[in-house]
Amino acid sequence: MPRIALFPGSFDPFTTGHLDIVRRGLGLFDKVIVAIGTNSAKQRYLPAEQMQDLIAGLFADEPRVSVQLYQGLTAEFARATGARYLLRGLRTSPDFEYEKPIAYGNQHVFPELETVFLLTSLTLGAISSTIIRDLHRFGADVSAFVPFELPPRVS
Amino acid sequence: MPRIALFPGSFDPFTTGHLDIVRRGLGLFDKVIVAIGTNSAKQRYLPAEQMQDLIAGLFADEPRVSVQLYQGLTAEFARATGARYLLRGLRTSPDFEYEKPIAYGNQHVFPELETVFLLTSLTLGAISSTIIRDLHRFGADVSAFVPFELPPRVS
Amino acid sequence: MPRIALFPGSFDPFTTGHLDIVRRGLGLFDKVIVAIGTNSAKQRYLPAEQMQDLIAGLFADEPRVSVQLYQGLTAEFARATGARYLLRGLRTSPDFEYEKPIAYGNQHVFPELETVFLLTSLTLGAISSTIIRDLHRFGADVSAFVPFELPPRVS
Amino acid sequence: MPRIALFPGSFDPFTTGHLDIVRRGLGLFDKVIVAIGTNSAKQRYLPAEQMQDLIAGLFADEPRVSVQLYQGLTAEFARATGARYLLRGLRTSPDFEYEKPIAYGNQHVFPELETVFLLTSLTLGAISSTIIRDLHRFGADVSAFVPFELPPRVS
Amino acid sequence: MPRIALFPGSFDPFTTGHLDIVRRGLGLFDKVIVAIGTNSAKQRYLPAEQMQDLIAGLFADEPRVSVQLYQGLTAEFARATGARYLLRGLRTSPDFEYEKPIAYGNQHVFPELETVFLLTSLTLGAISSTIIRDLHRFGADVSAFVPFELPPRVS
Amino acid sequence: MPRIALFPGSFDPFTTGHLDIVRRGLGLFDKVIVAIGTNSAKQRYLPAEQMQDLIAGLFADEPRVSVQLYQGLTAEFARATGARYLLRGLRTSPDFEYEKPIAYGNQHVFPELETVFLLTSLTLGAISSTIIRDLHRFGADVSAFVPFELPPRVS
Repeated sequence: MPRIALFPGSFDPFTTGHLDIVRRGLGLFDKVIVAIGTNSAKQRYLPAEQMQDLIAGLFADEPRVSVQLYQGLTAEFARATGARYLLRGLRTSPDFEYEKPIAYGNQHVFPELETVFLLTSLTLGAISSTIIRDLHRFGADVSAFVPFELPPRVS
Repeated sequence: MPRIALFPGSFDPFTTGHLDIVRRGLGLFDKVIVAIGTNSAKQRYLPAEQMQDLIAGLFADEPRVSVQLYQGLTAEFARATGARYLLRGLRTSPDFEYEKPIAYGNQHVFPELETVFLLTSLTLGAISSTIIRDLHRFGADVSAFVPFELPPRVS
Repeated sequence: MPRIALFPGSFDPFTTGHLDIVRRGLGLFDKVIVAIGTNSAKQRYLPAEQMQDLIAGLFADEPRVSVQLYQGLTAEFARATGARYLLRGLRTSPDFEYEKPIAYGNQHVFPELETVFLLTSLTLGAISSTIIRDLHRFGADVSAFVPFELPPRVS
Repeated sequence: MPRIALFPGSFDPFTTGHLDIVRRGLGLFDKVIVAIGTNSAKQRYLPAEQMQDLIAGLFADEPRVSVQLYQGLTAEFARATGARYLLRGLRTSPDFEYEKPIAYGNQHVFPELETVFLLTSLTLGAISSTIIRDLHRFGADVSAFVPFELPPRVS
Repeated sequence: MPRIALFPGSFDPFTTGHLDIVRRGLGLFDKVIVAIGTNSAKQRYLPAEQMQDLIAGLFADEPRVSVQLYQGLTAEFARATGARYLLRGLRTSPDFEYEKPIAYGNQHVFPELETVFLLTSLTLGAISSTIIRDLHRFGADVSAFVPFELPPRVS
Repeated sequence: MPRIALFPGSFDPFTTGHLDIVRRGLGLFDKVIVAIGTNSAKQRYLPAEQMQDLIAGLFADEPRVSVQLYQGLTAEFARATGARYLLRGLRTSPDFEYEKPIAYGNQHVFPELETVFLLTSLTLGAISSTIIRDLHRFGADVSAFVPFELPPRVS
């Protein structure tokens, strides 16, 4: 049975830190599904479909990675896709405190689901998506943090 | 003079973790007032009045617990009800960092008000109200985390 | 070349803790610019221009302090004003975790920009602007936390 | 049944922050036992018996406070003294993370034992016993942090 | 190529929380080596060889788990055993802060080594080895925390 | 009056992260004194005098940096050298929690002493002196973390 991991997030945008986690996840899992959650009440900075295309483009030559949109509970989407693992990157203590109750909640919904944490690379994980959005919004160069050319935002 | 404690929160919803704090608070105080704060700008998931009824139902046989709605400053409501203690559950470091300045602010408004922290039970406190809302919104069973049947949300 | 520090924030309101940081910053820098950021999406409690006047009033006799409004990236505003330093007060671990990625982001935009942290005074930093707003909104006396008379809010 | 709280620690030395916790604990409990633990492998800075006398002197007029030495498990000593509560002061997140597993351990040994946390006063809790020892060792004045005259150390 | 994970620690003693991590690691890895580090300067509570036997006994029917003693750098021992993964359990923020620089250090020594973190089960991870030692030292029952009968300590 | 900063530590060993802090401190201060504290009870890994020579060698061409050994209270040594600032690097939340009470203690001893924190460079600060010692002790290459050739340890 292949080991399938779901890598869920809003990826608004997907960063070089996220890319690093996917690549390292491929050493651990047979398949990694990048899963863009779309039920958040908050407005996205970049459309989810656009982000899906950009991420898929990064893995055009890697059939073990797929990129999907989902709504509803992450644990239910994992079950539906056959994923038994959730892949998460950790950078900081607040990251960890944020992830902990979510992991217990997921385990409640889907007890066989195991959350696996990798440490985000020091240099690749220093800047969060939030800060990248702020930089991009005001015209700063974010090419060091994003693994593709970020399209201008249509506001 | 009876020792009265106010247990303030948004309780959206009230959880088994909250219930545990009230029960243990009854060992320490003569009376516990569960106080549902209603001046938050953010929209509730479940109506405060509905929650008040559900919580009151849990303590139908315990005259030492009352459930009240309040607006304005917690410390002023404590003073108005005769409560000299605020009862709070702690689960995590971020909980603690969140509580600390609030406690100092309350003390400024009502210097005799003492905030008393109990450690939320490991198993009962693992899942926060925020996560319970997410689970419930998408139809997951939350009966393990909520001490009454949670009504469907009228959205 | 004078050492110019930018002290950025939303200052909604400016507190005695902020005042303490500016005063101590004057021992370290030749000039301190209090910079009120105004591009946040969130509604201010008090108008930025009103706050600018109130802060400027505190330093009427100190020509080394100026108070300015700005939009866009803090690092770009620092560059535009000739500031080579960002001055920040630290009170708690969450403060520090919040500041860290911002500092790295600023350094990306303006590599010569150095973020300098001072420890906020224990007593002056206990209460955050967020809590002061809550106290003020409901009519509590906040004169202990704010270095000028806070005007009533026009809501 | 009187509410008895045990306030355990090494108290090497007892500080104004500790004194503040005892005083506030007297509002909550009928009796507070200051319990100086003596089985730590590490060498004390000041002898436990000397500290016992100094603390007892502070409460000469308060029959509701006693000061005792103990060895072995804190929870067992609580049981032996009739204490159903452990009183602990919290200053910082690391304090909280330190206390949490100890509280669960105590609960394992003595399930009826409730740990009650009070927030250490901002100004009284800024300086820990560790730092007071360092200051005292090198001759600095520590009278602001210790509620009695600290005897010179016989090294 | 089999996926081999090293699970390093002092295991003084090995706990039900550790056992949980090994079991869950077996879902992720083909082989798990429980590696008892023995070069710490600090005195062990129980001899490493005795602990090795006790742990090995737990996995007598699981040929995919081995238990080994090692000295020197963890990353070098991983390399020597063919392990490409380090398995670590996380309970708290301080755990995470402790692990982070160690993971970077290990990566420096053996760049292909990936540290994989699993969240320790809530109930099984509440009590650390440190606290179990304290309980055992004073005769408390620790059978809830240790997956074998802990021999009395020969001091 | 020149702005003199003391950069205190055990520097066992001095790292590239420390070097980075000194260099950046030279942009802020007229003079930086690297101060190796020698009254710790714990045994050093490398002799303080050897470390002093190695650090001094790094700054042979920079007369604004001096390297000194000291005993006793850091704040008293600052006063004795004319330093009005303590320079400290911050990497993590635990660093910050460690520094905070020390800073308040120093301020008690020497009220004019201001502690100034800089953020340690991401890449240069990932590995602490503790971990460098472990690596070096077992023969790993530490040249990436130490700005001079580290002599073999005479044990």
